[in-house]
Amino acid sequence: MSKLTQSFKPAAPRARVYLDHNATTPPDSHVLEKLSTWANDWGNPSSIHQAGRGPKTRIRESRDAVAKMIGTSALEVVFTTGGSESNNTAVRGALAALRRKGDQRRHILSSALEHPSLRRVFDSLVHEGYEVELVPVDRSGIVKVSDVEARLRPGETVFCSFMLVNNETGVIQPVKEIARLAKAAGAYVHTDAVQALGRIDLNLHDLGVDYASLAGHKFYGLRGAGVLFSRRGAPLDPLIHGGGQERNRRGGTENTLAIASMGYMCSRAGEVSDRAAKMKELRDLFEARVLREIQDSSVNCLASPRVASTSSLLLPGTDGETLLMSLDMEGFSVSTGAACSAGSPEPSPVLLAMGLSRGEAQCSLRVGLGWSTTREDIEVFIEALKKVVARLRSLREWQPIATERPHEPSMKVSL
Amino acid sequence: MSKLTQSFKPAAPRARVYLDHNATTPPDSHVLEKLSTWANDWGNPSSIHQAGRGPKTRIRESRDAVAKMIGTSALEVVFTTGGSESNNTAVRGALAALRRKGDQRRHILSSALEHPSLRRVFDSLVHEGYEVELVPVDRSGIVKVSDVEARLRPGETVFCSFMLVNNETGVIQPVKEIARLAKAAGAYVHTDAVQALGRIDLNLHDLGVDYASLAGHKFYGLRGAGVLFSRRGAPLDPLIHGGGQERNRRGGTENTLAIASMGYMCSRAGEVSDRAAKMKELRDLFEARVLREIQDSSVNCLASPRVASTSSLLLPGTDGETLLMSLDMEGFSVSTGAACSAGSPEPSPVLLAMGLSRGEAQCSLRVGLGWSTTREDIEVFIEALKKVVARLRSLREWQPIATERPHEPSMKVSL
Repeated sequence: MSKLTQSFKPAAPRARVYLDHNATTPPDSHVLEKLSTWANDWGNPSSIHQAGRGPKTRIRESRDAVAKMIGTSALEVVFTTGGSESNNTAVRGALAALRRKGDQRRHILSSALEHPSLRRVFDSLVHEGYEVELVPVDRSGIVKVSDVEARLRPGETVFCSFMLVNNETGVIQPVKEIARLAKAAGAYVHTDAVQALGRIDLNLHDLGVDYASLAGHKFYGLRGAGVLFSRRGAPLDPLIHGGGQERNRRGGTENTLAIASMGYMCSRAGEVSDRAAKMKELRDLFEARVLREIQDSSVNCLASPRVASTSSLLLPGTDGETLLMSLDMEGFSVSTGAACSAGSPEPSPVLLAMGLSRGEAQCSLRVGLGWSTTREDIEVFIEALKKVVARLRSLREWQPIATERPHEPSMKVSL
Repeated sequence: MSKLTQSFKPAAPRARVYLDHNATTPPDSHVLEKLSTWANDWGNPSSIHQAGRGPKTRIRESRDAVAKMIGTSALEVVFTTGGSESNNTAVRGALAALRRKGDQRRHILSSALEHPSLRRVFDSLVHEGYEVELVPVDRSGIVKVSDVEARLRPGETVFCSFMLVNNETGVIQPVKEIARLAKAAGAYVHTDAVQALGRIDLNLHDLGVDYASLAGHKFYGLRGAGVLFSRRGAPLDPLIHGGGQERNRRGGTENTLAIASMGYMCSRAGEVSDRAAKMKELRDLFEARVLREIQDSSVNCLASPRVASTSSLLLPGTDGETLLMSLDMEGFSVSTGAACSAGSPEPSPVLLAMGLSRGEAQCSLRVGLGWSTTREDIEVFIEALKKVVARLRSLREWQPIATERPHEPSMKVSL
């Protein structure tokens, strides 16, 4: 925003600032504009009469746009209803198909950082005779390739799942290297790329994975559409059987409206790197000011490769949930961790898995920037954050820990 | 429409007539009006900040409206993304929970009329050690209670699934009696009620089933929302694991928009019986005229209890698919069977299961009326149908079968 525009801004009540884009993103304004048009294509895409043709075309166009954005062929794009379904389908669908073909391998390798949709499907697989091994992660938030390599068991490891971008820290994982090693060991490889879509440029063929999960609503689309990339030839039984939709990979009448919105956003793939650069500038400004202006604050995984849109803070002397609610009252939407675990009294499992203490994890705050985040948003947010942190600390009669600003990104903070 | 209104009608091109409401229904005009409002509640319902509260409220209100319409408690309503997912979840979710609890029973009882989403999940269960027995059905299209009773095996039968309303014939099945017997034999009972919602009044507690599947888009809602009714205490593991949504019964961020539309429509439950009465009048008029004016035509399951909105015709001397496409060109959307099987060269598996010959099934046409169907729609459709049937028959040099109008609803037609 230019200074001129800013000076003419009327003194209206400030709009809320949404900084929880990792939980979900607002639909893009063009998506909202096209809602009615898309909703008019309400026919069943499987119908061979006129009412089915418009929806069928929208789905085909969306599939092409997704494929182009993620560097795959359109036939490898399976529309699901979201990221959790894609994750569940990748794991269960691959394993069911492999078992059906007589594959006896039962070792699964994943990380301690995965989304609950994967953690829980793994839990259920343990009851079905699978051994699930989770690669531990340190405060860097990075899954180390050597740690994966050491645990791969050729002839036993059947499936690996490593997320591409962590939803809480924003750390970009070395999935390409992991996939290369896992494939060499004969395993199939899945990546949960839900937090990557629209945040970094994606080329799944180049990444070398067999399966990847994506969700439209994390990229300014409507809820109700996700994608499972399933590499040509990769085994996949449907998780949801139905009338043969998605080439027998996902049954059920397609959600044309949500799929159209996801396809539309994917057609804007060309904006991703510029938008990310803009967010990075704001995020870096934000983190620099927080570290400078809020005593004893730290940024998780500061030195690790991260997407531009996520900042995971530790603010000793505060309680994340109280902080969140105080900021909410001030007009800011942020999060203490994954939204799916919101309401749970437990601190973030991701931060705990990285070796943070419960005390540390309990003073964490996740700030998720988006395409519409402005410098003004960040500036007013910093002021509010400073004010709220100071108030919470004074209520607790909190004492500063160190007199010098620590430089360690993954420093220990004792509470 | 009064004659006066009709006489003033301008000679504009006639709008298309949609008579395939069993495949999907157009969103209600109020749903379309509310689209933008609902879409503005885009926050993640699990978020505890302001952006999550509106969506959370909408979901709660929708759940209450659904529960009220189907005669259950709100806690028994699990939102899914549609009918196929609900069907898959009921079967897999119940069986997984039962196996986990040590249940050794492996006999499943269902009918030959079920939707592909059930038929295919049963196929996959056969590979997992289950025995699936399908109760045969005759030309009445009714699953006979005595046929179910004869096949129930106390101590072996673990799960029964019988659809409430058939999607092709509209026949209402005696699910209440079946459920009573199955429960007495110790089995859990599911009903696919997708074609019942909004067509007949529903009270699932009274029906006595443990699980029921519903889909919003078959009842003038948006695609992307379905319901699995799961009776309090009925075993159910999630098919899709996630962040604990739907009380750990269905993971994944909720599709607020589609759920709101389903809830809204369910709040109009009071209209169902009047609307059905109006449709019945039109359907009866339609069938009477077809039987009278199209030689050798017949109506499947004419004497069976049926919903008011479905008419399944046999039109000897025509090919269903050619008929469908010819009618499409004339401006009418109808179907030869389930939309999910559209494009398949196979005739309707439902009609074949009822004992119709391939030849009969291949000359079938499904007409699905909806809330917006008018008498004029039906009248212009009959004229078009007569014209198209006559043309197709003359191309085939078809000879009439009988000189007298047959009165048997399930008469044999040799081609």
